[in-house]
Amino acid sequence: MFPKNAWYVACTPDEIDAKPLGRMICGENVVIYRAQEGRVTALDNWCPHRGAPLSLGRVDEGKLVCGYHGLAMGCDGKTISMPGQRVRGFPANRVYPVVERYGFIWLWPGDADKADPATIPHLHWADDPEWAFGGGMYNVQCDYRLMIDNLMDLTHETYVHASSIGQPEIDETPCTTRVEGDEAITSRFMNNISAPPFWKLALRGNGLPDDQPVDRWQICRFTPPAQVMVEVGVALAGNGGYEAPKAVKSYAIVVDFITPETETSIWYFWGMARNFRPEDKALTAQIREGQRKIFGEDLEMLESQQRNILRCPGRDMLKLNIDTGGVQARKVLDRMVAAEHAAAPAAAATASA
Amino acid sequence: MFPKNAWYVACTPDEIDAKPLGRMICGENVVIYRAQEGRVTALDNWCPHRGAPLSLGRVDEGKLVCGYHGLAMGCDGKTISMPGQRVRGFPANRVYPVVERYGFIWLWPGDADKADPATIPHLHWADDPEWAFGGGMYNVQCDYRLMIDNLMDLTHETYVHASSIGQPEIDETPCTTRVEGDEAITSRFMNNISAPPFWKLALRGNGLPDDQPVDRWQICRFTPPAQVMVEVGVALAGNGGYEAPKAVKSYAIVVDFITPETETSIWYFWGMARNFRPEDKALTAQIREGQRKIFGEDLEMLESQQRNILRCPGRDMLKLNIDTGGVQARKVLDRMVAAEHAAAPAAAATASA
Amino acid sequence: MFPKNAWYVACTPDEIDAKPLGRMICGENVVIYRAQEGRVTALDNWCPHRGAPLSLGRVDEGKLVCGYHGLAMGCDGKTISMPGQRVRGFPANRVYPVVERYGFIWLWPGDADKADPATIPHLHWADDPEWAFGGGMYNVQCDYRLMIDNLMDLTHETYVHASSIGQPEIDETPCTTRVEGDEAITSRFMNNISAPPFWKLALRGNGLPDDQPVDRWQICRFTPPAQVMVEVGVALAGNGGYEAPKAVKSYAIVVDFITPETETSIWYFWGMARNFRPEDKALTAQIREGQRKIFGEDLEMLESQQRNILRCPGRDMLKLNIDTGGVQARKVLDRMVAAEHAAAPAAAATASA
Repeated sequence: MFPKNAWYVACTPDEIDAKPLGRMICGENVVIYRAQEGRVTALDNWCPHRGAPLSLGRVDEGKLVCGYHGLAMGCDGKTISMPGQRVRGFPANRVYPVVERYGFIWLWPGDADKADPATIPHLHWADDPEWAFGGGMYNVQCDYRLMIDNLMDLTHETYVHASSIGQPEIDETPCTTRVEGDEAITSRFMNNISAPPFWKLALRGNGLPDDQPVDRWQICRFTPPAQVMVEVGVALAGNGGYEAPKAVKSYAIVVDFITPETETSIWYFWGMARNFRPEDKALTAQIREGQRKIFGEDLEMLESQQRNILRCPGRDMLKLNIDTGGVQARKVLDRMVAAEHAAAPAAAATASA
Repeated sequence: MFPKNAWYVACTPDEIDAKPLGRMICGENVVIYRAQEGRVTALDNWCPHRGAPLSLGRVDEGKLVCGYHGLAMGCDGKTISMPGQRVRGFPANRVYPVVERYGFIWLWPGDADKADPATIPHLHWADDPEWAFGGGMYNVQCDYRLMIDNLMDLTHETYVHASSIGQPEIDETPCTTRVEGDEAITSRFMNNISAPPFWKLALRGNGLPDDQPVDRWQICRFTPPAQVMVEVGVALAGNGGYEAPKAVKSYAIVVDFITPETETSIWYFWGMARNFRPEDKALTAQIREGQRKIFGEDLEMLESQQRNILRCPGRDMLKLNIDTGGVQARKVLDRMVAAEHAAAPAAAATASA
Repeated sequence: MFPKNAWYVACTPDEIDAKPLGRMICGENVVIYRAQEGRVTALDNWCPHRGAPLSLGRVDEGKLVCGYHGLAMGCDGKTISMPGQRVRGFPANRVYPVVERYGFIWLWPGDADKADPATIPHLHWADDPEWAFGGGMYNVQCDYRLMIDNLMDLTHETYVHASSIGQPEIDETPCTTRVEGDEAITSRFMNNISAPPFWKLALRGNGLPDDQPVDRWQICRFTPPAQVMVEVGVALAGNGGYEAPKAVKSYAIVVDFITPETETSIWYFWGMARNFRPEDKALTAQIREGQRKIFGEDLEMLESQQRNILRCPGRDMLKLNIDTGGVQARKVLDRMVAAEHAAAPAAAATASA
């Protein structure tokens, strides 16, 4: 249950530096590589000759060469050559629209005619030298919507991340959720509290004292199909919180791209963009390690939750106030999937068979 | 194929000392923990909020607190509180009847109305200071009835446990089986034989010579649903065997509780209760290590047998004289399951769907 | 999809030296062992008593004794004895025709009445002191026909085995395929080329220079159901190639027996028979290590190909000129399977259900 006519993060550039990458995205078996002049290309990961995965091959002068018998394919999915063989009339491989932008490779697993790169969400921090980004990726065995739920309801931090970013005030402070078009935004503001360990680190990293009361905020923004940006930060208390001057706050965006692999597994691209000390690479590495540990805690919980759900089919989950963000996100996703099915009922029926 | 209206050993107390335990018992997904005043409690292992396993949570002032978003549940399966949320009207979790007795936690996976703690079989040795007990647990991938068969026909000792408790006289000496109500008892008495290695150890442990002829006995008692107690021992030959005075024999009970996890896997609680040198903890440890090795040999055979049976569906097994104990046990179990289905045909049909 | 009325290599003699071997062959669950006077015997791997795999037992005076309760079985599949039990009327186990020949154990998984040892293909090198053989076995997760395809089209060597036996001339030189009865033969002759690393080793091993131009040949012969013998070699250029005098060439046969375990897995027996320096055991070991590495490369490719095919059901593969050998082999196999179904429609329907 995921829209296919949408842009998903497929991989990061370093994953295709050395060789082609085979990856299943929204159930599509894809090979991603750099062709002529480094242009990113994504094709059906199937050699039309004998069905070997093209991702086991190599790139030679821009052509993707199968690692089994040397069939060479172009960016258009057409077979160019094969040693000693006639290749006219070979069926062309499917080509997936793909765009390299903001430090990620974006892929459109659905109907190529509908793919418009202009609809990739704008990431203002990605090309801004005032900002730095660090992140990583986990392959998690859960429905992508469970991860969206997780990120749209941060009360779990108090329990799952008690030693790093959790604190009781998150639970105790009500959140508000609003909908803007297809986006859902859940906000929470906690004033005059003590900073938890991760934010003490971020304050020190920004040259601020870590032992004073702070105002803390969390603004989770879901953008379909599977992106959650969480504006997070602390400001020394009484300076306006979220609106405080830059000099007295540490501000960042938790970046989450959640790409379905199958119905019950995801490629989870996580990271943090910050606008303090962007040049400090040691700080970037330190934050990334902190996040890697934190998201590892989520991973264990989400996979346990998914297994439990599969063990108990037909059982409902409750939708509380704190779940409003996730509920709104699911409504948008349901609408998108329904629209795809309405537009192409036969194809949709085939795909879901 | 197992009765659900019955008491099964679910775990040992040490398994719930530090944190809640998640365990599947007879296909039921259960969390077991100590609530107020150490009282053992067992609930459906499902958080009504988002389906996380409650066993990943913790106990706080007697309440079971979900490790995902902090939902707190009482011993009655009712949600008590959740930070910032209204919890009225939450559906209550199923509560499983559970009793701590004889050093084990007993659970009733079926209809709670029918659970009567008085029907837990009496274990006379469990609270008797003249007796000592040591044991352990294995998770084995086999139908629980294959383990019952194994324990009711000890001729396998000659082959599976040749180096510890097996000896040809077991095969050569006929056994007799009798039925007492729902119990089946298979007995074998071997007189004036040499003691095998395990019993030489037990004789020495009891201060008796290990190089003299002995009379040896094995009395296997099946009590439904899944308990087999095997009275075992050796006496210096010519003193009356099983009836010999305590001073010239080493006597013990092999304790076996076989709890189905699924149709083809079990939680196998094994151990030995002995009435000689009960205060000798080193001897207890030594015997436990001997048993762990012996039951490990069974484990390998039973899992191979189960895989072979699954590989050859529809094939029959023979029922020989030595199998009478297991055959009688299966008759009792068939009767219990049929009675459950007759009493609740709709529920049974649902459960087996 | 494999013929059952055919001889397959089941194992090598060393695999049954110490104890009985349990192995699935063409979906049949078989135990293979040496009975009286070392005679190889193959039976249904099922103890008629309780279904334990007989392969966990041992051989005692020519009888196969079950490791669970001591049932003893003869070479005819009939139960001979069981301690303290009457064994008249036990159903006999199926006996599989089996022959030890050429250093392999051959098994006929189909209708025993049709098994004629005279139809085991003759291996002229196996009993000839002028020849030496070394080999090994891999359990590979792929349809046996994918391995036949692999061996009948050696253009993959250029890509899969680039560092050992591959070279561009293989691709560049056309092959020819001819059919002789049920055999398919694909040949390629490459003249006046440089020897690749493996053949440099073989030339040195044979006391020949490794830095001179050579003529190289590859003659792949498929014999049903699943044997591919590849005549391979190099001769110092200009001496007649394949027909060159023995003193100026290194000549060998790549030996491949491909035994289906299931529809998508095989026991792959590989090796090399050579007619130079047959007494040199160090050379035999060196060549075997080289082959082990080379076939390990195939293994990775074939398992990836199989997974990709299972991921994309219903997709076709192309059949090019280089695939003619494999295509012809599949035609023969289709014909054999169709003939079996026609001869025993009911049994075939049951087997494929």
